[in-house]
Amino acid sequence: MNRVCQLLKIKFPIIQAGMVWCSGWELASAVSNAGGLGIIGAGSMYPDVLKEHIRKTKLHTLKNFAVNLPLLYPSIEQHIETIFKEKVPIVFTSAGDPNIWTSILKAEGIKVVHVISNSKFALKAVDAGVHAIVAEGFEAGGHNGREETTTLCLIPKIAKEVDVPIIAAGGISSGKTMLAAFALGAEAVQIGSRFAASEESSAHQNFKAAILEAKEGSTRLSMKRLNPVRLLENDFARAVFEADLSGANKESLLQLLGKGKAKQGMFEGDIINGELEIGQVAANFNDILPAKLILNQIWDEFLNEKEKLLNLKFK
Amino acid sequence: MNRVCQLLKIKFPIIQAGMVWCSGWELASAVSNAGGLGIIGAGSMYPDVLKEHIRKTKLHTLKNFAVNLPLLYPSIEQHIETIFKEKVPIVFTSAGDPNIWTSILKAEGIKVVHVISNSKFALKAVDAGVHAIVAEGFEAGGHNGREETTTLCLIPKIAKEVDVPIIAAGGISSGKTMLAAFALGAEAVQIGSRFAASEESSAHQNFKAAILEAKEGSTRLSMKRLNPVRLLENDFARAVFEADLSGANKESLLQLLGKGKAKQGMFEGDIINGELEIGQVAANFNDILPAKLILNQIWDEFLNEKEKLLNLKFK
Repeated sequence: MNRVCQLLKIKFPIIQAGMVWCSGWELASAVSNAGGLGIIGAGSMYPDVLKEHIRKTKLHTLKNFAVNLPLLYPSIEQHIETIFKEKVPIVFTSAGDPNIWTSILKAEGIKVVHVISNSKFALKAVDAGVHAIVAEGFEAGGHNGREETTTLCLIPKIAKEVDVPIIAAGGISSGKTMLAAFALGAEAVQIGSRFAASEESSAHQNFKAAILEAKEGSTRLSMKRLNPVRLLENDFARAVFEADLSGANKESLLQLLGKGKAKQGMFEGDIINGELEIGQVAANFNDILPAKLILNQIWDEFLNEKEKLLNLKFK
Repeated sequence: MNRVCQLLKIKFPIIQAGMVWCSGWELASAVSNAGGLGIIGAGSMYPDVLKEHIRKTKLHTLKNFAVNLPLLYPSIEQHIETIFKEKVPIVFTSAGDPNIWTSILKAEGIKVVHVISNSKFALKAVDAGVHAIVAEGFEAGGHNGREETTTLCLIPKIAKEVDVPIIAAGGISSGKTMLAAFALGAEAVQIGSRFAASEESSAHQNFKAAILEAKEGSTRLSMKRLNPVRLLENDFARAVFEADLSGANKESLLQLLGKGKAKQGMFEGDIINGELEIGQVAANFNDILPAKLILNQIWDEFLNEKEKLLNLKFK
C-alpha cells in the first residue's frame, strides 16, 4: 500500500497542486472524483470566496480534497476558521513557517502536508509534525526556492533526510516523469502546470492558450532578490526581470509586481501585462483536456513505463 | 540489448563526463576498465598533452574510451589530427556546431556523440548524423544551456523529438538518479561531478574537498549573458556573478573569467580565487572513492531500485 494514498485516502498517488487563480472547486472536485487529490488554492481567495469554493467542492465530490494555504496569507486566521468550520480534511501549507499552524491544524484532526524546496525546511516541517512533505524543484511554476535545486537533485536528498512520505513537485506532467519521481524516492507526485491547462482549471482561456504555446526557455525564475517566482515570459515578466537586474529597491519591485497582476494575467486573461505563473514543463504538452483524462493518462503511462523499465535488457 | 552499450561497446550504460582539468588518462582508463566509458576531457589540454593522455589511456586499458572535444576549441584541427592518428574510437563533441566535424569524424570510422541542452540543437545534431546525443540539464556543472531546462523536463522532451539514443546528463550521481533518467527515456547516463570526486580524477585535492563540502545552493549558473556556466560559490564566482549582474561589457567579463582561472582553481587548488565547475548534485555525496567502486555502486543501486520500483503496491 502506498503511504500517501493511505494518509490522504485517495486511489492514485497523484495530487493536483493548489495554484492561485487556477484551482477552484471545479478543478479540485474533478481531480478528487477521478481518484486523485484535488486542492483548492486559497492564496488568491478572500475568506468568503474560499468558503464558497469549499462548499461547492463538497457538493460536487464525496471524496477527500484539500486546501492549499500559503502561510504568509494576510488574513490567515480567517482562512483557518473557514477550514475548521467547513471540516476540510487535508491542508497543504506553503510559503511560511510550519511551526505556527501545524499543531493547531492537527488538533482538529486535519492532515497537514508542507511544501519545501530544501533540506533545512524539510527538517523544520518534520519537527513541526507534518504528516508528509511536498519537495518542489526549480522547474516548478510560481513561487520557488532560492537554492534553485532541481527536482532530480532535491528528491533523493530529502529522501535521505526525512522519514515522512515525500510528494515530488516540479517538472511532472506525465507517467514517465511520475515514474522518475518514484525512482528518486517520492511516494506521490504533485502536478500543477498540467492541471492549469485542464478544462476545469479556472485559468482564463487566454492563459491556457499561452501555456500550450510555451516552449523550452519560455519560463524564467524571476524576482530572485525578493521572492523567487517562475513566470511565463511576457511584457510584465520582462519588466520585472529587468527591474530586478537593474537593482531596483524592494518597494519599487513590490509595486511593479503588485498583487492585482496575477489576477489580471491568469484569471482575466491579460497575457501581455499580467503575471503568468507556470512551470518549465509547460513546454512538454499541447492540449487542454478534462482533468480526469489527464489523471488517467498519467496513471496508465506510469504503469506502462514501469513495466517497460522492468523489461530492459542490458546483455 | 542496450543501444548505447552496443554502439560504444561497453558493459554498463554509464559514461564518465569529459571534464576540463578533472578527466585525464587515469580517470578515463579506470572507468573504461570498470565496464563504463571513460572520456578524456580535451578542452583543457594542449595538442601534445592530449596525445600523451590518449597514449597513456591505451596503455592502461584495452577497452573502448572516448575524447570529449569542445568544438570551439581554438586548435581543434590539431586535436582532430591527434584523434585520427591515435585511432580514438569515440568522440563526444560539445559547445559548437556539429555540422562541421561530424561527417569528417565518421568518415574515419569514429562514433560521434554530441552534447545538447535543447530540442533545436538535438535536431541539428541528428541532421549532422551523430550516433547518439547527450541531453544535459540545468543542474549540470560547467557549461550549460541558456533555456535552463532541467534534466527532468529535458529528457522526455528530447526523447519525443529524436530516434537516436539519448544519454542523460545533469544531476546524476547514483543508481536512483540513473533509474529516473531511464524512466524519462534515456538509454545511458553521463556522470561528471561524482567522478570529479573520484580517486583517479586529476582535480586538485583542495577542489575534491570543496566538492564534498558543497551544499544545496552552493553552485550557481553564472555568466548567463555571455556563456552560462555552473560554478561552485567562491570569491571568483561571486566576482563573476556581480560583474555579470552589474552589466559589465563582454571584454571585461572575458578578462575576469580568463582561461587560466579554471586551471588555477580545479587543477592547482586555489579554491578561493580559481574557477570551480561542478554540478548541483555535489550536495548529494560525501566521499572520494575509486572510480570503479563509484561505478559498481551506481550499477548495483540501479538494479536494486529497479526491482523495488517493480514491487511497489498501490492497493
